[in-house]
This record gives sequence, structure tokens and C-alpha cells, in this order.
Amino acid sequence: MRPSGRTFNELRPIEIETGVSRYAEGSCLIKAGNTHVLCTASWEENVPPWMRGQGSGWVTAEYSMLPRATHTRGRRERGKGASGRTQEIQRLIGRSLRAVVDFKTLGERQITVDCDVIQADGGTRCASITGGFVALREAIRWAMKDGVITKDPLTDTISAVSCGLYAGGPVLDLDYDEDSNAQADANFVITGSGGLVEVQATAEGEPFSEEQFAAIFALAKQGCAELAAKQNEV
Amino acid sequence: MRPSGRTFNELRPIEIETGVSRYAEGSCLIKAGNTHVLCTASWEENVPPWMRGQGSGWVTAEYSMLPRATHTRGRRERGKGASGRTQEIQRLIGRSLRAVVDFKTLGERQITVDCDVIQADGGTRCASITGGFVALREAIRWAMKDGVITKDPLTDTISAVSCGLYAGGPVLDLDYDEDSNAQADANFVITGSGGLVEVQATAEGEPFSEEQFAAIFALAKQGCAELAAKQNEV
Amino acid sequence: MRPSGRTFNELRPIEIETGVSRYAEGSCLIKAGNTHVLCTASWEENVPPWMRGQGSGWVTAEYSMLPRATHTRGRRERGKGASGRTQEIQRLIGRSLRAVVDFKTLGERQITVDCDVIQADGGTRCASITGGFVALREAIRWAMKDGVITKDPLTDTISAVSCGLYAGGPVLDLDYDEDSNAQADANFVITGSGGLVEVQATAEGEPFSEEQFAAIFALAKQGCAELAAKQNEV
Amino acid sequence: MRPSGRTFNELRPIEIETGVSRYAEGSCLIKAGNTHVLCTASWEENVPPWMRGQGSGWVTAEYSMLPRATHTRGRRERGKGASGRTQEIQRLIGRSLRAVVDFKTLGERQITVDCDVIQADGGTRCASITGGFVALREAIRWAMKDGVITKDPLTDTISAVSCGLYAGGPVLDLDYDEDSNAQADANFVITGSGGLVEVQATAEGEPFSEEQFAAIFALAKQGCAELAAKQNEV
Amino acid sequence: MRPSGRTFNELRPIEIETGVSRYAEGSCLIKAGNTHVLCTASWEENVPPWMRGQGSGWVTAEYSMLPRATHTRGRRERGKGASGRTQEIQRLIGRSLRAVVDFKTLGERQITVDCDVIQADGGTRCASITGGFVALREAIRWAMKDGVITKDPLTDTISAVSCGLYAGGPVLDLDYDEDSNAQADANFVITGSGGLVEVQATAEGEPFSEEQFAAIFALAKQGCAELAAKQNEV
Amino acid sequence: MRPSGRTFNELRPIEIETGVSRYAEGSCLIKAGNTHVLCTASWEENVPPWMRGQGSGWVTAEYSMLPRATHTRGRRERGKGASGRTQEIQRLIGRSLRAVVDFKTLGERQITVDCDVIQADGGTRCASITGGFVALREAIRWAMKDGVITKDPLTDTISAVSCGLYAGGPVLDLDYDEDSNAQADANFVITGSGGLVEVQATAEGEPFSEEQFAAIFALAKQGCAELAAKQNEV
Repeated sequence: MRPSGRTFNELRPIEIETGVSRYAEGSCLIKAGNTHVLCTASWEENVPPWMRGQGSGWVTAEYSMLPRATHTRGRRERGKGASGRTQEIQRLIGRSLRAVVDFKTLGERQITVDCDVIQADGGTRCASITGGFVALREAIRWAMKDGVITKDPLTDTISAVSCGLYAGGPVLDLDYDEDSNAQADANFVITGSGGLVEVQATAEGEPFSEEQFAAIFALAKQGCAELAAKQNEV
Repeated sequence: MRPSGRTFNELRPIEIETGVSRYAEGSCLIKAGNTHVLCTASWEENVPPWMRGQGSGWVTAEYSMLPRATHTRGRRERGKGASGRTQEIQRLIGRSLRAVVDFKTLGERQITVDCDVIQADGGTRCASITGGFVALREAIRWAMKDGVITKDPLTDTISAVSCGLYAGGPVLDLDYDEDSNAQADANFVITGSGGLVEVQATAEGEPFSEEQFAAIFALAKQGCAELAAKQNEV
Repeated sequence: MRPSGRTFNELRPIEIETGVSRYAEGSCLIKAGNTHVLCTASWEENVPPWMRGQGSGWVTAEYSMLPRATHTRGRRERGKGASGRTQEIQRLIGRSLRAVVDFKTLGERQITVDCDVIQADGGTRCASITGGFVALREAIRWAMKDGVITKDPLTDTISAVSCGLYAGGPVLDLDYDEDSNAQADANFVITGSGGLVEVQATAEGEPFSEEQFAAIFALAKQGCAELAAKQNEV
Repeated sequence: MRPSGRTFNELRPIEIETGVSRYAEGSCLIKAGNTHVLCTASWEENVPPWMRGQGSGWVTAEYSMLPRATHTRGRRERGKGASGRTQEIQRLIGRSLRAVVDFKTLGERQITVDCDVIQADGGTRCASITGGFVALREAIRWAMKDGVITKDPLTDTISAVSCGLYAGGPVLDLDYDEDSNAQADANFVITGSGGLVEVQATAEGEPFSEEQFAAIFALAKQGCAELAAKQNEV
Repeated sequence: MRPSGRTFNELRPIEIETGVSRYAEGSCLIKAGNTHVLCTASWEENVPPWMRGQGSGWVTAEYSMLPRATHTRGRRERGKGASGRTQEIQRLIGRSLRAVVDFKTLGERQITVDCDVIQADGGTRCASITGGFVALREAIRWAMKDGVITKDPLTDTISAVSCGLYAGGPVLDLDYDEDSNAQADANFVITGSGGLVEVQATAEGEPFSEEQFAAIFALAKQGCAELAAKQNEV
Repeated sequence: MRPSGRTFNELRPIEIETGVSRYAEGSCLIKAGNTHVLCTASWEENVPPWMRGQGSGWVTAEYSMLPRATHTRGRRERGKGASGRTQEIQRLIGRSLRAVVDFKTLGERQITVDCDVIQADGGTRCASITGGFVALREAIRWAMKDGVITKDPLTDTISAVSCGLYAGGPVLDLDYDEDSNAQADANFVITGSGGLVEVQATAEGEPFSEEQFAAIFALAKQGCAELAAKQNEV
């Protein structure tokens, strides 16, 4: 039995509301159960200096958590720069989003996707990727509607889900209670057409077996397919 | 004529929604027109080391803006620490809230009020004080209901409003368009019973006269009285 | 009774000695009682990159305290950057001095005013503004004498004074003993012709009333008029 | 054909020399082809403050590259702290080594494993894990020989290998030339008895398929088995 | 011929004024020609944590230059910490002063000597040592007069002077004009009784010979003897 | 008697192995007894921005110690920048190497010499200079062989040795045991033809006399002559 009462292969309820920011070119608030992430996509009509003149664009991401997104208040990441964990997550989000963008079609523009966690109940990096994609797509729609670009640079959709071994068996979409007690913790980033972009699985205590890994993998494919359907509904 | 069509002594529409955070002891989302600030109050059952053993508590505040709260994306305050502007605002918020707390009654506890600007259209520091007070009061209500404390340490309510000289005359509650073109810019922090806690007025170009200052001051008193009424409605 | 024996509306003895630095284009050592600040004005024949080509100049200020300017030794502001307090003061000094400079007349030049507190007995930010103006004026005289500029870009004089509520009543020009025990603490920056540039009043404990604010304000006007006379004597 | 002339499932020549440091309790120099990493294990008779009194130990790792380990000179990581990449690698090494240590048996001691890359030709994080384990085991042997501990806290061996998709097919143990041109890049950390500790696979351009992932996975299992044999020879 | 008209073995005029700081336990303003350094000695009734309980004291020094101490304005050392040059000088001053203090006699106390360069015309580190000793001695006299200590912990006097090769020959006490064009630059720190504490000689362009070094050394001994006499006059 | 059994004027066994780095243009591993330093020289076909267009080159050096080069593990210099000690050593190495390079002959190129201490038993800065010169010479030979430059910019050889007063008498080439107990510690940097580039002598406790300094100086000249011979053998 899972603490939330969900079945082993059941996602948390997902809600995605777009257009939540007055100023950002694309935005959404994604809620995966009690995990809430505000995603904005900011369009910039140029690229970093070292990329200029190559006719190619860029997508980058930043991730942060509000201090009281969690059970106990966390410190802001000032003074010492982003922590290793934050940087690891930012790089994963950026890499994942770039996997479905054709940069030649985008042209010399940069889109920055900011993922700010308002409330955290596990799975914030996956919600950031799934929501970040929606914000990115909104920004591209804005640019196409305004005639800034004429061809869609997106080649697919992308979403992410966590899975793990909890209480001896594989479960889909871990919340905080499960995550703190999992024997293994995995994140999968998968495109709408089923291509793999990132596979990360980590033993928290005991190593896990190939069979266990296969079971987790199967859940992730199912979960990402459901998330892709949700993204397309919006 | 003001860009928003408001009369010279008209506040923006104010909405204050409490209980917006699942984990914080007190919280609210305050909207002053298009300025939206998420305020959380975090209760901690001890004080900083240098205050221990004196039977007295503390209230502190932090302020931050999400990168895309504004028209163009701003950089996160990582690596180099909070900017001078951020620190000045944080200190003002903390000082203002402390003016209405009796620390002996609070006992050896610290409450941290986080003010995170989700969307900015001028007046973010004032909205942070007005909303921060509501979050602080919610946290105290939680503590009294839970029996953590038995007596209310709040001695009054507190709110803040900006005023300025715009297009030659005094106006109440500047939005971003007005703020960028004001000849003078002022912030007043006033208690529910009319006590002055902070008066700050700055000439942006030409110095201003005593008469102009008096006109602004009168508007501020009216505005804070309306905000106090709003706080008491919640 | 004030600890120093001064009457409630009496400034500390003011001495301003100019030409104290062999290298700076303008300089003075200002002594307001036991508060001593060395002010230098450094002339630079260009402006920051983002201001170039607009035919307009800039004045900026930096403020610092020697470690043993105070009763107990303070730490140098190395490693972590200027504190919030230091940045707040620097910005106030710069803003105040810029209020009396016509930047078109100055042309594309920057003047940096450094205010280094040699000895501190309260009121260091006000002494820095009053003395900083004298150093700035010396630098401008140097430039006019040398033919670097032909027209005086100064539009007025500027000075600053602190006031407060001490032992129940309003007092002018607080020293350290008074400042540490004041119920309210205020700084006023006023031009020679009586224009207001900055008004800042803060309750240290109890909020203060409008009447108390008016009494403080009246003292400040008198004090700044005396300081302006002193500046013009030099 | 691979640039090095190796077959698709061929590891680079591995050499592990132990006892290379006069002062460290355990040490080795591991060479995987032209990738050379100096690993030292430093024994400390206490644990970080937050772990004290629990009767349990800790293993942590640090990773760094000498500036001229690579084709062009890199900057030292001073001033700004370890980069995101460095922190990600350090955390992976530490997590991997901890997976084969029984901390109750170790007792309240900390072992720090430093992995300093002397020369880099791809696969430095995997060589650091494989070599880091040998240094860790040497330190434990030293402690058992000296009677500092009486029971071996190691529960298994651990090694790591990279695999990827290069020129259309799966290859084992990528060197720098392959790594820079791979379509997918993966790292596997596997115990001597075949338990999975970490699985990380990243698409560099196009997403990869489940079949491709399976092929890579098979190579990794073979590679880690060969590395485990090598570790046991030493 | 020297730019200043001095003979090759002539010190600049030296003035040392003590008691210049209202708060510091010891202080002096030393002027070596146009080089002016404010030295304060701050007495603290305890030592750093790692020295406690050993019955022994410590003397440490800090060095800094005001931004406009020099011909062109220098940047303050904020944000990035003290530069290599500053740290090297601070350590030299501290080491030099400690050479004439008996720490057992001082007891568990720390004296911090701050050397702040008000105006710089070469030789600031030597003036800091010579003046820093006087401030240190004043602090000790204060402590003995107040009965804080009963026995003088100073074992000797200490002073420092620079010498160099200028225009082909050895010269004593280089000013800025000479220092910028010297072929070799040396600093000597010598006790009142002629003991050597520090010898530092550096070739700026061509290496120098043993004979040249001997000539410089002879000048330094003469110079420090004159400085010691000056210190004893005060 | 010295702890190592060496006579007072005996160097430790010196080994210098060149060509130890696959990528660096010049490299060597120098062993002075148990002190081992890896030196690489990196050739760059341009100079820092502020040197461009003057037809002149530059040599710079960096120095670092691996964490477990010493008896107890040291912390890496991340986060806070290089320590004062490290910066002092880096500047000494760079200055010493530049003394034997003709920068006009080198042309607009920069060579960076990295000295990474693998194992430390005293005298690491001297070994870095002696080994750094060999790496620098290797890089220049590479450039001449490749036709990058046609004329040798080296004007001499350079080496360094430490000396000191130990157990009452002068000794050559202090190891760690001696260095920790020396009454005086000195470093000399001398060219192959006997020119003095740097003389640094420091009293650790008691000041030392002229006679003692002369004895140390004589040992240093002998030691550097032996090191120069060793450099020329390679």
C-alpha cells in the first residue's frame, strides 16, 4: 500500500494551467499532486556571444525552490551560488528540452525556461521538465502568432516521470513520503514518440537487480505516455 | 490623468488570499493590481545563538523577485549575494513588522517572513509589508490555536503604501508606469492606529517642496487606513 | 539634558579642511564633533560603458569605515562584499550629490566621491554628504581652473543632518550616545535653497506621531541651513 | 571502426598501481589507456558533527582535474567553487563507494577519497570510481593490519564503465575522440556480484531507442565484470 | 641624482604623531615624506579559539590602502577578498611585529594592528612596520598604565626600510618615482639591537650581483638605525 | 646531526623526468627527496588583452598542492580563492622564471607553468622553480623544433634552494622535519651564471645575525650551482 492510497502504476492528479504570467512569452503552473511548479519561458532576440553568427539558437533552464516550498524552511541560494543539486537539475531540464528543438529552425534566439518550485512534494525535477515543455511551447506559439518565426522548431513533445522501488515493489511517480524511503530512485525523460532522452537510476541502499530495473522502466514508459497526452490536451 | 485611469487618491484593487501554502504556518498571496507577492511566515522554536536565554523572540524578513516577474527577465541573485536594493528592502520589511510585535510575549521564537514577488508592477516593497503582516498574523493564530503560545504578541496592524509626484501632482499607490516617471517617490509604513513607523521620500530629479511633501503624506495616511481595513476583513 | 551638554537644537562643532589629499582632484576632512570623515573626489575623463555617447556625466559615491573608527574594532568588508548598511549609505550619498549636478554641463565625465570614516561618533552618513559636497566642489573648481570645463555644473549646495527623539523630545544632530538610545532616528538631505532631496525617518521602538515628526523636521531645516553657511565659508 | 582500433566490446588497457602516496592510508594510480587518475583515501578518526554519537561512519569523495590534464589548459576551480559538472561527478563517486560499505562496521570514522585526474582521455569519472574503490580498500587493509578496526566493512567490490552509441553502434569504454562524437553516452556503476548501483544514459542529439539502450547495458555488464577481476588481481 | 634631490643614503623626513585615534588603545600617524599611514593597535582580552588555554598571546596585522591614496583611484578590495599583494604585506607586518613580542608575558590577549595607507608615495609596507610598532608600543603602555598587564612584553624595537638599485647605484628609502624604475628592490626588517628579522631582495629586470646586494644591505642597516632612534624619541 | 642523516651542505637526491604529460608542450616530474612536483608548461599563441600589440610575450605560473600531498589531508582551495601563501608562491615562481626570458624574442605568446605538488616534504616552492624552468625549456624546445619560433628566448638557467638555521647551524635544502623546527628559513633564486634574482630570509623565532645570514648565503650558492648542473644534464 502506498501512503497516498494510489495503485503502484498510478500518477498523481496532473493540472496544467497556461498563461499564468502577464509578462513572460510562455508560462504555465503545473500541479502534480502537491508539487506545484511555476514555469516561464523568456524569449530573447539574440544568443550568447560565443554562438553568434552561426544561425542557430539555444534553450537553457534555471531551477529554484522558494524557501518555504518544503516542510521546513530552506535557505536561499545566495552568496555561494547554486548548489550541486540545483545545478544538476538545471542541466537536466535544459538538456531535456533541447532534445526536442531544431535550433536551425529557431534561428539566433535564446529561450530561457525558469522553473520555480512553489510547493514541493517530491518529483520537482520531473514536473519542471513536463511543465517547462508546455511553457516553451507557449512561447513558440506566441512567436509564430506574432510572426517572429514562421516555422515551428519543436520536433516532438517531452515529459519526465520518477519511479522507484518502494516497500519491495516498483511504483510510479513517487511523492515525498515514498521518495524518502525508496530503495531505488529513477528519473526517465521520454519524448512523445517514445524516444529515450535520459535514463537515471540510483540505488539508495542495496543495489537493485536487472529485473527490478526492467519493472521500473516499464512504469516510466506508461507514465510518460499519460503525461504527453495531458500536455497535448492543454 | 493617470495611465491606469485611477483618480489621484485611488488605491489599486487589493486582494488577499490566506492559507495558500500547504507547509508554512502562515501564508497569503497579496495582489495589488498586477503586483502579486507570495508571503509565507515560518515559525521556528528557537532564536539565533546571540539572542538565547533572554526570553525574547525575533521577526526577520527576506525578499526576492522571480526572474520573470518583470517585463524583461532579471538575473537570479546567486553567487554575489543579495544586491543593495534587495537588502534595503528586506531590512525595511523586517523593521516594519517588528514594530507591531511584543517580543517578550512571543518568547524565544523566531518567525521568518518570506516575500517572493511573483509578478511586479510597482510597489512590491509596500505589498510585501502589507501581505507580510497578514502571513505573520496567520502564523500567530496557528500558534495560539495549537496552544504553542497563549497570548497574542501583536500590538497593532501595519501596512505600507507608496505615493509620489507624477505629472505635477501628488498620487497614491504608484504603479510601474508612474514610478518610472515620478519626480518624487515615497513610502510610508503606518500602524492601524495611525502611528508612523517609517517615512521615506526621495527626489528623483528636482528637489521637492514642503508643501508637496505634505500633500503626499496626506494621501499615504488615507491609503494605509484603507489597507488596514482590508487586512482586518481577511 | 543631552549627554554632550548641547541644547536640543545645537549642532556639534563643525570643521572642514580642504586640500588634504596630494593626489585627489578635490578633498576635505570634515569633523562634526568626534565624527571625522575623509572625503576625496576623483575626476575621470570618461563614463561607464552604458552611458557613453549621450553627452552626459555621472557622480557616484563609496563609503567605508576604518576598522578602528569605532569603540570596538569592526571587521573589514572583504570577501563578502559591502554589507547592506554600507550599500544603503553609498546609494544615499550618491543620490544626494547628484541632485545638485547638471550632468549635461558636466559632459561625459565621472566623479567618484570616496567617504572614508576615520573616526565615528554617530552621523557618519550625514557628515559624508556634507563633506562629500565640499570635495566635489573642490574637484569642479580644479577642473574649471585647469580649463577642463568652462561652466560650473553645480546647481546648488547640499547638506545633511540627523535628528531624532531622545529622552522624550526632539534633538538635532545625534551623536553615538544619543543614537543608541533614540526612540526615532531621521536623516534629512536639503539643498542650500531649501529643496528636499531625501527624508528618512524610522521608529526604533514605539511608532512616532505626526506632531513629533513635524518637530524633527523643523530642527532639520535649521541644521541644514547652518551647514550650508559653513560650506560656503570654506 | 573505432579511432583507437579497438573492437566494439574491448576495454582500454587497465593498469592499477597501489601504494603510490607516502602519506595517504590508501592510494593507487589507475591508468585506463591515456586516462590517468591518482586516487588517495584519507582516514579520519571522527565523523562530521551532525553524525556524531550514532556509531556510524561515512565515505566521501572529491574530484578534480589538473589544469593541463587535457588538450588545452583548463582553469583551476578557485574563487567560484566547484563547477556543476565537478559536483555532479563528486557526488556520483561518493554515492558509488558508499554502496559497498557497511557503516556500522566501520564505526565513527570518515574516509575521504580524492580523485585527481593527471591526464584525461575520456572516462575520468568511471576510472575514479574503479580506482577510488582500490584506494578505499587499501585504507581499510591498513586499518585492519594496524588493528584500528577488526572487521572488514566492505560488502562487495564496485567498478564503473562508460558505454555509448558511436558511428551507429554500441561501443564499450569511450575515449575522448569517441565521447565527443557519440549519439548517446552512458555510465554504469555495478558491484562485483552484479548489483546495479547507478544507471545513467543521456542522448546527445537524437533520442535513442529501447533496443539501443539494451545493447549498451549488455556491454556495461561485461566491462564491469572485467574491471572487477582486475581490481581483485591487485 | 635622485628625483627628490636626496643623497643616496638619505631617508625621507620622518614624522610620527601618536594618540591620533580617540578609541584605539594605541595609535600613530607616520609620515615618511609623502607616504602617510594611520596605524592603530586594538587590544582584545582573548585569543582565537585554537590558541586558548595555552597562556600565550598573539599579534596580527591588517593592511589596506584608501582608494585615492595613489595618483589614480584604485578599487576597494571588496567582494573578492584581499589581493595577493595585500596578503603578502599583511603577513610581513604581522611576522615583523611578533619578532619583538614575548607572548608568554603578554598572556592570552590579542593585539590587532591596522595599517591604513592614507597617502602612498612608495615604501608603504616599511612605514607600516615602523609605525605599527609605535602603535603597538602605545597599546602596551596603555595596558601597563591601566594595570591590565604588569610586565612589558616587548623585547626590542623593530623598524623597516626599503633600498634598491636606481640609476646604477644603491639608494636608501625609495619613493614611488624611484621604485617604478628600480633594477632591484629590497626590504629589510631589523631590530633596534641590529638583529635581522626579514631580508627580501628582488631583481626587477637583470639579476643583481653579490656586491650590489652587500651595498644595499649596508644602507638598510644605517636606515633602520635612524628609524629606531626616531621611534625612541616619540 | 640532521634527521635525514645528510651533511649540513648536502642536497637531497634530485631526479628530473621530462615528457611526463601527453598534452603539455613541456613537462617534467621533479623529485627532491620525498618532495614531488609535476610541472607543465602550456604554450598559448596570444597574450592577455592589456599586452597585445607590443610584440612582447609573458610567462606566468600557478602553484597548487594535492589535498593528500601532506601528512594530514588539506582542503582544496575552492570557493574562497587561492590563499595568501599560495599567491605569494605563485608570484615568486612567475617572477623567477621571467628573469631568464627575453620577451621580445618570445614574441606575443604566453607560457603558463603549472606546478602541482603531488607529495610534499618541504621545499616545494624551490622544487617548483627548478622543475618549472625545465618544463619551460621543454616547451621552448618544442616550439623551436616545430618552427613556431626560430630563436631561443632563454637567456640563462634558473634554480632555487632553501637554507636555514637548524639546531644552531646553517643547513642546505631543508626537509619538512627541519623546516618545522628552523630558527630561520631562507629561499634563494639564482641564475646559472650566478646572478641573484630573489633573496628571502625570515627569522622564525629569534632574529638572526649578519654572520649567520652570510653562512646561509654561501650554502645557497653552492646548492643552486649543483641544481643548475642537474638541469643541464636532462
